[in-house]
Amino acid sequence: MEQFEGLTPAETFQRVSASLGCDPTSVKVATYLDEHDKLSHLREDFHLPKIADLPPSDLSLVDGSQECLYFVGNSLGLQPKMARKYLEEELEKWAKTAIHGHTQGSRPWAWAENNIEKLMADVVGAKEEEVALMNGLTVNLHLLLLAFYKPTATRHKILLEDKAFPSDHYAVESQIRLKGLDPQESMLLLSPRAGEETLRTEDILDVIQKEGDSIAVVMFSGVQYYTGQLFNMAAITEAGHKKGCFVGFDCAHAAGNAELKLHDLGVDFACWCSYKYINSGAGGLAGAFVHERHKDTVKPALMGWWGHDLKTRFKMNNVMDLLPGVNGFRLSNQPILLVCPLQASLEVFSKTTMKALRQKSLLLTGYLEFLICHYYSKDPARPQKPYVRIITPRDPEQRGCQLSLCFSVHIRKVFEELERRGVAADMREPSVLRVAPAPIYNSFTDVHRFVETLGDALKASSSSSSSSK
Amino acid sequence: MEQFEGLTPAETFQRVSASLGCDPTSVKVATYLDEHDKLSHLREDFHLPKIADLPPSDLSLVDGSQECLYFVGNSLGLQPKMARKYLEEELEKWAKTAIHGHTQGSRPWAWAENNIEKLMADVVGAKEEEVALMNGLTVNLHLLLLAFYKPTATRHKILLEDKAFPSDHYAVESQIRLKGLDPQESMLLLSPRAGEETLRTEDILDVIQKEGDSIAVVMFSGVQYYTGQLFNMAAITEAGHKKGCFVGFDCAHAAGNAELKLHDLGVDFACWCSYKYINSGAGGLAGAFVHERHKDTVKPALMGWWGHDLKTRFKMNNVMDLLPGVNGFRLSNQPILLVCPLQASLEVFSKTTMKALRQKSLLLTGYLEFLICHYYSKDPARPQKPYVRIITPRDPEQRGCQLSLCFSVHIRKVFEELERRGVAADMREPSVLRVAPAPIYNSFTDVHRFVETLGDALKASSSSSSSSK
Ligand SMILES: Cc1ncc(COP(=O)(O)O)c(C=O)c1O
Ligand SMILES: Cc1ncc(COP(=O)(O)O)c(C=O)c1O
Repeated sequence: MEQFEGLTPAETFQRVSASLGCDPTSVKVATYLDEHDKLSHLREDFHLPKIADLPPSDLSLVDGSQECLYFVGNSLGLQPKMARKYLEEELEKWAKTAIHGHTQGSRPWAWAENNIEKLMADVVGAKEEEVALMNGLTVNLHLLLLAFYKPTATRHKILLEDKAFPSDHYAVESQIRLKGLDPQESMLLLSPRAGEETLRTEDILDVIQKEGDSIAVVMFSGVQYYTGQLFNMAAITEAGHKKGCFVGFDCAHAAGNAELKLHDLGVDFACWCSYKYINSGAGGLAGAFVHERHKDTVKPALMGWWGHDLKTRFKMNNVMDLLPGVNGFRLSNQPILLVCPLQASLEVFSKTTMKALRQKSLLLTGYLEFLICHYYSKDPARPQKPYVRIITPRDPEQRGCQLSLCFSVHIRKVFEELERRGVAADMREPSVLRVAPAPIYNSFTDVHRFVETLGDALKASSSSSSSSK
Repeated sequence: MEQFEGLTPAETFQRVSASLGCDPTSVKVATYLDEHDKLSHLREDFHLPKIADLPPSDLSLVDGSQECLYFVGNSLGLQPKMARKYLEEELEKWAKTAIHGHTQGSRPWAWAENNIEKLMADVVGAKEEEVALMNGLTVNLHLLLLAFYKPTATRHKILLEDKAFPSDHYAVESQIRLKGLDPQESMLLLSPRAGEETLRTEDILDVIQKEGDSIAVVMFSGVQYYTGQLFNMAAITEAGHKKGCFVGFDCAHAAGNAELKLHDLGVDFACWCSYKYINSGAGGLAGAFVHERHKDTVKPALMGWWGHDLKTRFKMNNVMDLLPGVNGFRLSNQPILLVCPLQASLEVFSKTTMKALRQKSLLLTGYLEFLICHYYSKDPARPQKPYVRIITPRDPEQRGCQLSLCFSVHIRKVFEELERRGVAADMREPSVLRVAPAPIYNSFTDVHRFVETLGDALKASSSSSSSSK
């Protein structure tokens, strides 16, 4: 959609609607944007569930043969169509040749994950040698922290958000305890200002500036799971480094969503899961990143045979020949059955670039924002009307594809009505709905249908709640 | 085969051959034993590769339509037939319902592994609450050591075999370093006596008795990967406990092979992989065991959200509600695609008991030993004849199903000739062949065919080596 480059999303929708002679909220705008979306074909590479197949759907309300409105790629990505084929190939190999699968075929099990690390590196802006695919995210976070968090008497803190994802919170807390320190003293938790939902970059930089000398590790998420805030990774990394801290990111919600530049920014370490925007299936193989400048200096604290140079790994002489960098952090052999769907998804990513996906994403999420604001802004003239406040930063540079919507009404009923109508989104009581249009498979029409459906759901939930009074 | 209870394997083969009126080495004995094997039907639950499908097979030498002679279940188990069906069910669920798969169907992804932990517990002789399915073996070993290895100034050593599996060696070495200690001082490596291949139980007990006060953790394998020695876990555990040590076992080669009694023996912790005798596929989900008496006292050093009580896990309030025992050691959510094949295999195990499998195994491996000794013992009268020495203890109580054969000739050529004839076994240069008849799918006829094929392979390799001179 080069013709819109330089325009804001809102300007784009105005421009398109003007050229079509319709209202900017018309479905025609969505259709037009889809028709001109050069990435729209990527949707074909995924299984889009039909409304009829989603358990909560109510087929008296909606046509079950339609594709559902899937906005929870931030939780579990859709299945890449090639996943099944690749899995079947490996099942066939296992059934027919068993042990020989370790070294045979297009995915020799003994190093299958190595074959897709380049593709993964491209998604997160890293060099191939900086990325390892292994374990789950929290496991990788621990392995990385064990190597990077070396507290001293004066520099012993880990800085993170007060509302970090629970697993990260527990990971940091237990790492601090493992070093014999007290989380009360060494866990520096940063909260938004009173009355605000998201952290201001200036406040993050400020705390690093002020407390940096006592901070061993600065550890943020790339994109915040709850608010959808995309942190300024460049500024945070730079500020941390200036004060002599290591800087790491949990990119669970950023990988495959934002355009990451882990290498160029000089991030020290990062980890991410692959089952969200990277569509590898529940519990898929996670990623770990260690910047190449640490490759010979930051050693893994824990070692296993998979960190041993492959060339001599099977000589089994118990003399460690440690792979440099993140590869030395490998412990166990990797599961081939998790490599298959991940490969399938990464191959879809390799048909485009994160830059192009991000460009589409800005417009797609901008479209969601535009329609939400149009229909569901607070209207002082109609105090009864339910309205929506967007928690996610309004600055597109400070968010990924997700918008976190805060409703003036209790969310549960609205959510149930959405689900009955074929919407998959994520609800957090009392009032938040997280909606993540994934640029790799969501369309502008999806967004338009969602906003229309939200109207129906609000109507139905308010009438059902008044009728149930 | 109750009719043979109380007899040694050799007596059994004599008895059978006498009743059949044939030589004890006759194939008729194998046929008879298979016909009377109450577990022989379990073979039907696995995909036995055909000789023609194994890459090294030479179809000019052997009938490719025959099932191969698969004796590397100690490395990678065969595929349970139900694995594909279960995987397809979950792929279907993912394709059709995506996020809803977390809570729907017969394997809700968010707790799918919990549904098969009882089955796994039965295989290793544990209570359900003592077992967690997660990660890879080396990862689990590290998580367990982090909790159990708490060195003090006087008690800081880890006792293990000098020839432990490399990953275990590296794990222990790095754990010691992580505590700021020197492996030279704190890693107590036990070797067999000069001229011996395996450790004597008395020597193990002796070192525990003598050095126990300085030993924090005694850490052995259940079955030694190279020699096939089954350690006396009861005696080692008891001796360790007497001296105040924690006792842990790497049961990679013991789980699904020997009859383990982790709970009854009071073992403190254990870990194992599931891709060997438990047939879950390359890189399958590993197991971890923590004895229930530690459930409220031995806390995981590293924590993650999956160790949080499931009932409140998704409240996401960052206040840890740690599950007791091994369940608190969970870090990341588990991969559904690894649960499927493991379930398929564990269901086969649940059709019988480890006691019954072990009973068959004693006879099956005894049969291999009997035939090997019969044909390939050293014959002073024929000094040219290649012979085989069994490294594995001859006492059946001190071994699992594997026999490690040491050849008087270099093994590579023999191995290649075996592979050309449809044998899958494991070679270690210069002279060792590891042969593991898995009682769950191997037959007495397999063993008989193997020993015959070995004769052909020895002949071919000696003639090819003399002709190549
Ligand atoms: C005895 C033993 N320990 C540890 C391992 C390492 O297993 P993983 O790669 O699953 O960590 C193996 C693998 O073969 C093994 O045989
Ligand atoms: C931001 C973030 N961190 C960590 C995790 C935990 O991931 P895992 O269960 O793969 O360790 C998640 C999972 O949703 C997450 O969103």
